[in-house]
This record gives sequence, C-alpha cells and structure tokens, in this order.
Amino acid sequence: MEEKIELLKSILKELHRGASVDELKERFREVLSKVSPIEIPFIEQQLIREGVRVEDILKLCDLHVALFREALESRELSGVSEGHPVDLLVRENEWLMKQAEILGLYASQLMNTDDLGQALNILKTMTRITGELRKVKIHYRKVQMLIFPYLEKRGVSAIPRVLWGREDQVIVKLRKFYEKAVKAIENRTLELAREAGKIAMEISKEIGELIFRENKILYPTVYALFDESEWATIYYESNKIGWLIDTSSFKWKPSVEPKYPYMIKPIVTPEQLAKLPVEVKNILEKSGITPDTYEIKKENDIVLETGFIDKEELEGLLRALPVEITFANKDHRVRMFSESMFHKGFLRTKTIIGRKLEYCHPPRLEPLVKKVAREILSGEKPYRVFWTKVGDRTIRVLIAPVKNRDGEIIGVVELVEDMTDIINNVEEIKKSIMVL
Amino acid sequence: MEEKIELLKSILKELHRGASVDELKERFREVLSKVSPIEIPFIEQQLIREGVRVEDILKLCDLHVALFREALESRELSGVSEGHPVDLLVRENEWLMKQAEILGLYASQLMNTDDLGQALNILKTMTRITGELRKVKIHYRKVQMLIFPYLEKRGVSAIPRVLWGREDQVIVKLRKFYEKAVKAIENRTLELAREAGKIAMEISKEIGELIFRENKILYPTVYALFDESEWATIYYESNKIGWLIDTSSFKWKPSVEPKYPYMIKPIVTPEQLAKLPVEVKNILEKSGITPDTYEIKKENDIVLETGFIDKEELEGLLRALPVEITFANKDHRVRMFSESMFHKGFLRTKTIIGRKLEYCHPPRLEPLVKKVAREILSGEKPYRVFWTKVGDRTIRVLIAPVKNRDGEIIGVVELVEDMTDIINNVEEIKKSIMVL
Repeated sequence: MEEKIELLKSILKELHRGASVDELKERFREVLSKVSPIEIPFIEQQLIREGVRVEDILKLCDLHVALFREALESRELSGVSEGHPVDLLVRENEWLMKQAEILGLYASQLMNTDDLGQALNILKTMTRITGELRKVKIHYRKVQMLIFPYLEKRGVSAIPRVLWGREDQVIVKLRKFYEKAVKAIENRTLELAREAGKIAMEISKEIGELIFRENKILYPTVYALFDESEWATIYYESNKIGWLIDTSSFKWKPSVEPKYPYMIKPIVTPEQLAKLPVEVKNILEKSGITPDTYEIKKENDIVLETGFIDKEELEGLLRALPVEITFANKDHRVRMFSESMFHKGFLRTKTIIGRKLEYCHPPRLEPLVKKVAREILSGEKPYRVFWTKVGDRTIRVLIAPVKNRDGEIIGVVELVEDMTDIINNVEEIKKSIMVL
Repeated sequence: MEEKIELLKSILKELHRGASVDELKERFREVLSKVSPIEIPFIEQQLIREGVRVEDILKLCDLHVALFREALESRELSGVSEGHPVDLLVRENEWLMKQAEILGLYASQLMNTDDLGQALNILKTMTRITGELRKVKIHYRKVQMLIFPYLEKRGVSAIPRVLWGREDQVIVKLRKFYEKAVKAIENRTLELAREAGKIAMEISKEIGELIFRENKILYPTVYALFDESEWATIYYESNKIGWLIDTSSFKWKPSVEPKYPYMIKPIVTPEQLAKLPVEVKNILEKSGITPDTYEIKKENDIVLETGFIDKEELEGLLRALPVEITFANKDHRVRMFSESMFHKGFLRTKTIIGRKLEYCHPPRLEPLVKKVAREILSGEKPYRVFWTKVGDRTIRVLIAPVKNRDGEIIGVVELVEDMTDIINNVEEIKKSIMVL
C-alpha cells in the first residue's frame, strides 16, 4: 500500500506540473497497472490524512475515471457502440464516480479537522455535492425500471433485488446525510458534522461499489443477454427518464422496433451463458434458470398504450377511482359516466347517456356549463376547477379536456372528487406523511 | 270568493265535530264542486287573516289532497296502475302538497303577527317543515334525470327546461329561506322573520303550482308518450334515487326490459298526439316536433354499464384524470398503468407491464407492498391510504380493490394524486366554494 501511495503522490506532482491526464496515463501505464481503479479512493483518503490538500487530489479524479474507463474497455463491453444505452450508463457512472470521489475526499478532510468553522464550511460544500449526487436516482431508475424487468423475465431476480437494495440504501443515506448536515450547520456542532461526514464516506464508498458492480457484472451480463429490440425499449424509455450526461452528440439509434418484457421469449442460450461474467455464470449454472413465462396479455383485452385491461377490469377500475367521471364528446353529448366506491358526488343516471351536456343542469347554470365546455373543447383554457358543496361534503369539480395521442381535443370530462377529509384534516395529514 | 270561504268554514266546523275526510267528501260533493282544488290554499290564507287558528285549518289539508286526487283521477291519468312511476310521482305530489300547504299556512300566520316571540316560534316550526320540504329534490331529480331525457329525445325540450327552471327556483328559495330564518332567529328581528316568511309563501305557492303543472300537464303527456320499456328504466332508476313515500306495498313491475333514451325511436304518433293535454298538443302542433336523432353509440365502442367509450377516448380520459393509476391483477402482476396530465407521481414505464408488483419497489418496501396487496386482494381491508412526498409535492397514495359487478375482487389498484395545492390552500379553497 505504501508503495502505491508513493506512486500516486508522484503522479500528483506531475499533475501539479501541468501534465495532462492522457500524457500521464501513457507515462505511468506500467506504474498504474499495479493500482486497481477500485483502490484509488482509499489511497486518496490516505493522502488526505497525510495532509495533502483536497484541491490537489481532486485532480486525480479525472485520472481515476480515465483508468476506470480503460479497465472496462478491455473487457466484455469492448464492442458497445457509442450512444448505446450501456455506453451511456457507463458514461453516467464516470460522472457519478467523480462526484462520489469528490464527496469522499471532502468527507475525509472533514473527519480530519477539529476546527468547527472549517468543518462546517466543508459540510456546506458537501451538501452542494450531494445535491448533485441526488441525481443518481435518475441513473438507478433506468436500471431498476428498464433493465431489471428483462432480467426478471429471464428468471434472474436475485441480482436485481440485491442491486436495488444497495441503490436504495444510497438514496436513503443521501437523505440522512442531508438531514444531519442541516442540523449540524444549524446547531454548529462538530459531533453532528462528523456524523454527517461518516454517512458521506459511506455514500461515496457505496456509490463506488455499485458503479463497480454495474460496470463489471450487470452491464456485461445484460449486454450479453438482451437483443436489440430490448435495447430499443431501454433506449427510448431512458430518453424519457433523462440522462445525467449530455447525450446529444451520440448517434446510436436502434434499428428494430422495441419489445417490452412481456413480449420476449425469456430464453438464455448456451452461447449467451458463455459470454456472461464468471460470477453470474456460476450463479446461474448452480441455481438453474427458471424463466418467468407468465402471460400478461389475455384474449379480449383492450390493448392500451400502457398495458392491458378487459371490460370487467375497466368497469371495476372506474368504480375504484376516488373520482366520479362524466365524459362528453365534442358534440357536447354525454358518452359515459362512472360512479365511485368512495363517494357520491352529483347524481347521474343511465338516462343521461347521449344527453346534451347543458340539459343535465338547471337553466340557471346552462350559460356557465356551455361556456366552460366551450373553453375546454376549444383549448382556450387548459382546465377549470370549481369547489362546491354536496350536503356537508366539500367537492372539487375539475373540468378537463380529453385529448387523443396527437394532442387533439376529442372531448371534455367532469371529474368530481370529495375532498372533505383532506380539507378538514390538513394537520393530521402533514403529520402522517411517510418518506418512502 | 266570499261564498267559497263560507263553504270551507262550514266544512271546518264539521271536521271539528269529528267528521272524517271521506264522510265530508261525500256530503259536500256538490258544495266542493264549486271550489277548485287550486283555490284552497288562497282561501285558507284568507281564513288565517280572519283569525282562524292554523291548527284548525291544517285539518283541511287532508281534504284538499283528497280533492286533488279526485280531480286527477277523473282525467288523463285514470288508467295508471297503482305503483306505476306516474302513480308514485302523483302520490309524492300529494305528500308535497300537504307540506307546502302547511308551510304556507304558517307563513300567513307569521305575516299576520306583530309579536316577535310568536313570529320566531312560528319561524322555528317553519324551518322544521322546510327541512322536510328539502326532500322535494328527490322528487325533482327523478323528473329531471329520468323523465326529461325521454322528452328531449322526442324533441320536446321547452317543457323540461321551463319546469327545471321553476324547480330550481324552489330549491334556491328553500336555501334562501333557511339562511334568512337562521339570521332572523339569531338576531331576533321581526323584519328578517317577515322576509323569511315572504320567501316561504313563495315556496309554498311555487311548489303548489309545480304540482299542478306536473299532474295536469307533464304526467299526462309522458303517460301518453312513453312505452313500458321507458317506464321500466324510470322505475328501476327511481328506486335507486328513492321515493318520498313508502312504496313497499305497491306491486307494479315492468314486464319488459328497460330502454334508455339513446335506444328509443323518438317518434310521436298521431294517436299519441291526440291523447296529449291540450296545452301540450297546441305547442307541439304549432312548433312542430323535431326529434333528437343523435346516435351516441358508435362502431368499435367499448360498451360499458354506464355508457360508451372508444379506445382513443379511454386513453385520453385516463390521461385527463388527476390520478395516476397502476393496476395489478390477482396474481400481483401489473396489467396497466396511466399517466396524468396534471402531475407526475411515481415513475412508471412500459417495461413494468406484466411485472410482479413487489419487484416494482425496493426490497426495503417489499414486505409492506406485499402485505398491503394481500390485505386489499383478500378484502381484509376496504382500502389503504398513505401520504408521502415526491420532491416537495404532497402525494396521496390510495390502494383500493378492483371488483367486478358481483363484488368479487379481481385486482388491486394504486391511485396516486398530488394534493399539494389543496393541502397548502385550504383557506382559499373554503372561500372559493360556490353553492351551485
């Protein structure tokens, strides 16, 4: 270890001299081969303890990321195209690695000072960094929501569950760190600052470990298993979720139609198995693979953009909503309505199907009803909200446009919801809020 | 008029003597033929002014109702079966007539006293009567929601609009009376009491007039026009809305399947026209009848219990809800989800279709998710509510069972709604409540 620390110190000196990361990589290739990328954060923290300034060590981060990228390039992911979801996820990890490393460095510095003022200043810097690091959620969400379902479908559920557990821990710790840091800054306590620092150290370490697991195990696995139609889904859906990095310069586009997990034949071929990282291969060979063959789509299903529902389920779903619906088309004619199991709003009966909207109200309200329907159907107003009473219940009446996928307005809907229990219990509700 | 008042006075004396209404009807048949039922309230009010006690005059109400019934029996509705919706509506009107008449009598008494204490006592009695009279809504709702649509379909829309306007006025005045009465009683003011009394007089008169219009014009018209399949609908839907009178002893049941307004061929035959009350016949013959031939049902519609919707509308409707839906079946598998135009709750992507519910959450929440899903799917809990935060938004998460028409639980739905703007603006909302 001593030797490795000395090595990094010499690299630092070179960086100080003004050498570029690329130049250093070349010159220290042999030297660096003795240092695993995963060791660098620990060595950096050692340097902090020895009194090297954080600002100097930060320069090492770029080198670290560069090394990391090289380490990956040489292995299973060597064939990944620029802009492919795996490529973009790896690039996100580089960004994350750097943020996590910086956080860890400041945390080390914090743990090494006895000066309250300095500690609090460092802590403030750290809250800015964790503010950035919270975006890690956007990275994890793509992994959890887009990649894991395809693994689960193939019967690989342990890896997703373990990873999600660790990712979740990072998110929870980020929250804890922030609470602790705010308290430390408010109360000006070194103890609290150090507790926050300790959590930050853990966050830094755990993000780093997750990056390693993703780059070394998860991505090689899914890259070997998923076909392009699956990557197509992951690509399009990822773009909706967003990226931590600027992806505008990457040209990769899937050349096939997306397939969702429920569409795929969840088979792992021997060729695929052979390509898997050895850790995964061992697990799968030992425990066997039982693919998830559940068929979610049934005959007579109504096929929606976002899933399937049959008529019985649809009617049950409408009844289960806390909202009562009355839907009219562009001709101001009632097409359908629904009743809620949760409350009775305005009386509607089956005799209003086909009825003119304005005839469903007393003449006194006819001008208002016509005006609002026109405002919504013409797009003049995005929606309207009214509050009224039905008996002693406080009712929200929301009038909204119904649009087709092209955004064209094809109808207007009245959405009636009983808000009495919210209006009357705001303080209790605030107290009952759980952070999930 | 003098003569008629004397006649009623003599009847009153007989009632005082203990004679029954039936007995009196027989004995005074000739006498009463000179008094129109519609005149009785005015004569009664005259008697009040002459100092006859309200309690005595109240006895006349029964006679009035009995006369009224006879007057109707002899005309177009003579063939109506006991328990037929028209019969029940007429019986409701008898009940209403009596309440309205009693209200009018007390109102007359109130207008004739200068004693504040007595005035307020009368007013208190009157608020009890109007409390009963508010139920008139149940009568009007049946007329407005069940009878009018069939008339509108036949191109007869003026009569429904005019009647609804007057019915609405009664409801509005009942509200006004109550506000005024409460104020008068609180402030102990004779002026306010009299203002309330004046409104009550109007209510009494207007309810009476509406009863007359219904019994003499509306019911004979619809009885001549509607066929049994229409009365079947009106009967079944009326039973859901409820009746002002006890209907348990009536045996009438429709012998055909109900037809909703959108199903009928809106034709008025010459034979039907001939049977209509002369006022209606004149109007229809003068203005002509243009039936409403709008077809609400389209090809490819999803036929719901309560209307029609096509797939495009359904998807648009789901987006227009203030609620985000994630629906799973009894196997804990996600069947569909929806996104709301109003807010983003939890991230869902198309890759979760078919996914196990518990895999959609971090392992930390898996036990809770499984427990809640089991509680709901087993019927152990009717629903569950959780409050949480997404960013700085306050989110209500409602977990509810999805049931089929037989009440069998066929799935579980997560309903996510952003309640921030309500939680944060309770006072503004309370101020913005409109009584419609």
